[in-house]
Parts: sequence; C-alpha cells; structure tokens
Amino acid sequence: MRLINLDNNATTRVDPEVVQAMLPFFTDQFGNPSSMHSFGAAVAAAVRKARLQLQALIGAELDQEITFTSGGTESDNAAILSALEVMSNRTEIVTSAVEHPAVLTLCAHLEKTRGVKVHRIPVDRHGRLDLDAYRAALTPHVAIVSIMWANNETGTIFPVAKLAGLAKEVGALFHTDAVQAVGKLPMDLKSTAIDMLSLSGHKLHGPKGIGALYVRRGVRFRSLIKGGHQEHDRRAGTENTPGIVGLGMAAELALKFMDDDNTRVKWLRDRLENGILQRIPNTFVTGDPLERLPNTANIAFENIEGDAIPFLLSRVGIACSSGSACTSGSLEPSHVLRAMNAAHAAVRFSFSRYNSEADVDRVLEVLPAIVERLRGFPSSGPGERSAEDLQSGLCLSSRRTGSRS
Amino acid sequence: MRLINLDNNATTRVDPEVVQAMLPFFTDQFGNPSSMHSFGAAVAAAVRKARLQLQALIGAELDQEITFTSGGTESDNAAILSALEVMSNRTEIVTSAVEHPAVLTLCAHLEKTRGVKVHRIPVDRHGRLDLDAYRAALTPHVAIVSIMWANNETGTIFPVAKLAGLAKEVGALFHTDAVQAVGKLPMDLKSTAIDMLSLSGHKLHGPKGIGALYVRRGVRFRSLIKGGHQEHDRRAGTENTPGIVGLGMAAELALKFMDDDNTRVKWLRDRLENGILQRIPNTFVTGDPLERLPNTANIAFENIEGDAIPFLLSRVGIACSSGSACTSGSLEPSHVLRAMNAAHAAVRFSFSRYNSEADVDRVLEVLPAIVERLRGFPSSGPGERSAEDLQSGLCLSSRRTGSRS
Ligand SMILES: Cc1ncc(COP(=O)(O)O)c(C=O)c1O
Ligand SMILES: Cc1ncc(COP(=O)(O)O)c(C=O)c1O
Repeated sequence: MRLINLDNNATTRVDPEVVQAMLPFFTDQFGNPSSMHSFGAAVAAAVRKARLQLQALIGAELDQEITFTSGGTESDNAAILSALEVMSNRTEIVTSAVEHPAVLTLCAHLEKTRGVKVHRIPVDRHGRLDLDAYRAALTPHVAIVSIMWANNETGTIFPVAKLAGLAKEVGALFHTDAVQAVGKLPMDLKSTAIDMLSLSGHKLHGPKGIGALYVRRGVRFRSLIKGGHQEHDRRAGTENTPGIVGLGMAAELALKFMDDDNTRVKWLRDRLENGILQRIPNTFVTGDPLERLPNTANIAFENIEGDAIPFLLSRVGIACSSGSACTSGSLEPSHVLRAMNAAHAAVRFSFSRYNSEADVDRVLEVLPAIVERLRGFPSSGPGERSAEDLQSGLCLSSRRTGSRS
Repeated sequence: MRLINLDNNATTRVDPEVVQAMLPFFTDQFGNPSSMHSFGAAVAAAVRKARLQLQALIGAELDQEITFTSGGTESDNAAILSALEVMSNRTEIVTSAVEHPAVLTLCAHLEKTRGVKVHRIPVDRHGRLDLDAYRAALTPHVAIVSIMWANNETGTIFPVAKLAGLAKEVGALFHTDAVQAVGKLPMDLKSTAIDMLSLSGHKLHGPKGIGALYVRRGVRFRSLIKGGHQEHDRRAGTENTPGIVGLGMAAELALKFMDDDNTRVKWLRDRLENGILQRIPNTFVTGDPLERLPNTANIAFENIEGDAIPFLLSRVGIACSSGSACTSGSLEPSHVLRAMNAAHAAVRFSFSRYNSEADVDRVLEVLPAIVERLRGFPSSGPGERSAEDLQSGLCLSSRRTGSRS
C-alpha cells in the first residue's frame, strides 16, 4: 500500500539530499568539531556552514545567534528557563492557550513548583489571539512572552513581530515557538524585536533529534544543559554533527524551494479543502481564514467522534491526524480546539513539498464514504465497527506515549 | 594521509552496520513512533528493539528502565536534577573531583544558585577514590551520589557497585556517569544497587546526539525536558528514531564483540604503553595500574608542556589528546591530573576495535623523535618551533568551544 503522508505537521520525510549531506559525518568525518587536534577542523567548518544556512533561512543578523539543540522541545524549554534566570526580578510569563505542550507543560510546572504566574492568552473561534487580553497581561512583571509563530493544529499564524514590539515596551523578552513556521514562511528576524526563536529539524525534511534556538545578539542567555563549552557555552554535550549538517542542508533546501513550495502546497491544500466542503455536508474549515500556514487544513466534521476519520484513513494508507487527545483513553477535543470553543472534533491534513495532486484526489475519493458510514448511514459487512469500538480500539492502538505534534 | 584515531574516548567512528540500521528511519520509515495512526507502529517496534538491545548491554532488569536522551551530558544533568526534585528534603550531592564537566559544571551551578552542598571526593595519585572521604561524606542529607564508572582521561575504574551499596545505607540515590564504561566493561545493573546510569552513543561506535539514562524500576524520576508524553513522560520531544535505532545497534555490536575487543584492544594498548616506556626515558603511566579501562593509556612525559605532543602527532595524522585544558589560552593541567597531584602533563591514547597493530607501530615510530625534539635536543630545519610558539599556536588553533571529552 502506497503511504500518503498528510501528517507533515507531525513529522516529515528526510530529504535524500539531507541524508547524503549527513552521511560522511558518521564515518569518514566522525571527528569532534571541538577537539583539540586538527582532525576536527573540517567538521567545525561544516558546523559553521550549517549555522550560516540556518541564519539565511530565518534572517538572523549573525550566525552565532544560532545554537543547536536536540529539537523544538528542548529549544522551547531552554528559552523560557533562561529568561526566568536572566530576568530574575520578574516572575510572570505570558503565553497563549494554544501553545504546544513543550511550552504549556513547562509553564504549568513552573507555576506549580516555582510560583511563577502564567498568563494564557485566549483565542477566538478562528484561533486568533485576543490582543486586548495580551496587552492587559503585559506589565513590568513579565520576564518572557512565549507565543508561537504558527499553530500546529490549525495553522493559524500569530502576528509575532507586532507582539514582540509590544512585549519590548514593558521590557519583557519575547520568544516564539516557530517550529511549524520555519521553512514554511519567509522570515527576517533581524528586522523584528523577537529575542528568541525555536525550530526543529524534522518539521522541514531534516532529521529528528536536532533543532536550534535563535538568541538575538545582546540577549543574555543561561544554558539549560550544563557541562562542556560546546556551542559557545550555550549547549553542553558533544555536537550532533550529522544532525547539524542535515539541519543546515534542510534549511538551504527550504529556502530554495520556499516560493514554489508555498504556491504548490497551498494549491493542493485548497483543492483538498474545497473538495471536502463540496462533497461532504456539515463540514467546515477551522483556523484563521486569512492568516494561515499554506500547508495546513484543519477540518471539522459535525457529528463525528475524534479519531474515527484518521483511524479509517490510516487503514487505506493515508496519514493525517485528529484534533483529539487520546493519551488517557478519552477522546476529548484538543486543548487548541477547546480554546477555540470548537464544538466538533477536527481532522488535520498537513502537506509538504512531497505531496501531489494524486494524494488529494485519493482522499477525496475515499473520504465521503468514510464520513457517511461514521455518521451512521446503513452499511454492511463484517468490518463494520461502532463508534464505541472505534474509540476504544483507537485508544488502545495508540501508544501511551502519544502526543500531539 | 591515513588518519590514525587514538582518541576514541573523545568520539568514535560510527560502525557501518549502525549507519545501515539507521538509514531507513530517515526516509521510508520516517514516521513518528508516538503518532496516532498505524504508520508509526513499525517505528515504535524499532524503538522497542533498541531499548532491548541496550537493556542487554547494561544488564538492566527491564527495557522500560531505559530512557533515550540526546547524549551523555543531558543524561547526567537529568539524573542529578531529578534526584534533587524527588529527594526535596535533602540538599547535598556527593561526587568526585575527577568527574566530567557534565557533572562538575552542573554541581558548581547548583552550589552557586541553589545553595546545594557539593562534596567532591578526592583521588590519590593513581586516580583512585578516597574511600574514607567518601564514607565520611555520606549522611542522610545526601540526595544523590554521582560517581563515574570509569574516568575519561585516565581510564581508572571506580568500584561503583560497592559505592552504590554504601550510598543506599544512608538512603541516597546513586547515579553513575558510565559514558566511558558502557560497551567497554561487562555490566549487570540488576545485580547492583545503582539507581541511575548515563551513557552516550558516540563513545561506542554509535551516532552523536543520542544517549540514554537508565533509571531503576521504582526510582522516582522528574523529566528535565518537559512537553509531550514521549519516553513514558520522562523525556519530551519527538523521538530521534534513527539515533535510537543506531544506538541500539551499536549496543548489540558492543556486546557481541566485547570479549574479543577487550582482549585485542588491551593487547594493543599494552603494546603502546610498553613500547613508549621502553623507548622514551622519563615517561610513566598514570591511572590505576590494575583497575583501568582496557582501551585507555594515559602517559606522562616529564618536562614537556601540555598539548605539544598531540599537536605534533596530529601533524602526522595521529589523533590523541592531552591532559591540559586549552580553552582559555592557558595550558594548565586538567582538573583530573590536578586532582591526582600529577606534576606533569600527560597524553591520552584511547583505542577502539578499529585500531590495529600498525597504528601502534606508527606511534612508536614517530613519537621518540617528537619527544626528543620537544625536550630541547638540538634539531634543525625551518619547521622548528619553540615550546612557546607551540603553546600559542595550539591555543589559537583549538576552537574556543573546545572541551575535554
Ligand atoms: C509548535 C510545536 N512546537 C514544538 C514542537 C516540538 O518539537 P520537537 O518534537 O522537535 O521537540 C512541535 C512538534 O512536535 C510543534 O508542532
Ligand atoms: C565521562 C564522560 N561523561 C560525559 C560525557 C558527555 O557525553 P556527551 O558528549 O555525549 O554529552 C563524556 C564525553 O564527552 C564523558 O567522557
């Protein structure tokens, strides 16, 4: 069965050019870029090149503003914890209700264990940030604002440049989780007031286990992981050189293809959305109609329970994801949909440059019957399962470690 | 120039079988092991297999006792910080004076910022732990003992099973940084009282950027990196599946080859040591003569400054490392040699199963002349450099990020 991946916001296939770029650093060039002897020199040069490739993608002023980490989650944790340390006379965090768990779980922990006050700015039913609430939360008590650039479930884009400017007015640091935005949206960080930005390799056809944190020049920083002097004392631990080189190449490719990709990917996404809305009654698109990632469609299907559609699509080789959290055996709507006051479970289809028109057509071919069946139209055959069966089956089949990406 | 790597305690070449095992997980099997849909299932099975491979290598009771991290440094940090959280009524740490910076830098930070009391147990001139001082430091105030299994510079092995038993008597948790020991020494954790153990992929012909933390069943643990529910809620962030699979394969190979490797590697190491001692006057072996890693030789050369030998060896294609810290432009002896009261700088030669007799012979061929020259015997030719030149040249050529591995 050919796999159709429409779950690219969860993770992407590594580009073959990225794998090729990485390979020498496992074997021939396995040296340590920080080692004393000269065998590390070529590796150090490759790490430098990767930093420049990332610098170009996000429009940083300097390559040294980029620190390699193990991924988006580590970058988010490092940014927030550093801010609390360097702004030690401030004890509040402003974030949104729809951040990734990498931010929200940490904030909840800090609230509980360190008495940090966390403002979770709400969103409207399109997933747009409540700007009045945001302004009201900004006071000189705020150490850091952490607001994502684009939401992983709905694709809604937040006006981070503007939000950063407002944060600056009260002297707070501004961090953005741009894990879903980097490689999909053009960026020019040097022209913004954003102080820190997180990104992750595997969301842009780079490898898993590598990410980066941008820290604007002049912003003080305290490392999360302490030990050796790697990464200019900002991230201890032997450098993951194949991962770094792979992320650099992924960044270069993302920049090179960005315009074309966006046009094509958006066309595919719109074709799917329109096709579904036309063919299937009582469906609607969630997320901001205007300010949205070009690759993300989040579609609500009335009267259908959480994971049922992704489950049945996966059985015909189509990967997508649901807006419900199945980790504890329950099918509640996700925190993002709840924050949007969405009444219905939704399905996320997320594209990448590897998708084709045929992928869209295949979904449009199989989805109407699936929805019809789930909505209780008569159907026959031994494969038939009740909604209840589906729920329990799904929650059993999803590993306990499952988490929304 | 053929590169001879005698710096395997810094990092190792990834085994080609490891690279082969990883490759499918970049492209065909790029799915997320935690994802809801079934495409992650094969990947989840591969992650499970890797956990079993590591379990076998370290002799853990259960595969779930193993949590994948981004490397040895993260594992060390996670272990110590978790212990302080779960033993919140205890505020002391016992460690040794010769730990890796991944432990010592964190301890110094905790001492400064959180008022934690740190006991750094001294060693004798062979690098052996002062057991009386250790016993004296163990009180019911100690939250965690963190003592390495084997030292990265001298190869000296600490009696961790015994030390863990003593720690248990005062109710302290016992963690060991086994980054240099895993894959080199047989282990059977389930028969010890060790609560936590750190390891790192790139020290055993696995990839960089992946490591693991063993946490004995029943030991409470708080994650360092917070976010999604991956790794049984012990390490948030999308799993580095190629890295995990690679580490698993590296563990399997290490176990398979351990006996043969140890015999051969030890033979090579002894041949080098004996050859140097015979050929070059005023040299001696540092580290415990009996309890030492089979692959590590740490040799002191009287009257020669720090990095001079590794520098000149690197110019003829031989990688080894020095016992001096060049990070700040000074050539002081390393903290390990200082703790041993060693009067002389030393050179570390560290072997792996990829080394051959020819490697040893090549060192024995070139080293006597290098030492003679450095000790100031008359020599001629335009390539001649003074010890001072060497020092400054070395410290300039080593990158600022340099750190002892
Ligand atoms: C918005 C957002 N932030 C953070 C992350 C975490 O990134 P990683 O899984 O690489 O740690 C993800 C993806 O999982 C994400 O979608
Ligand atoms: C004893 C010891 N502990 C910890 C580490 C850190 O491991 P990593 O560089 O994988 O983070 C190293 C190597 O650098 C080491 O030799």
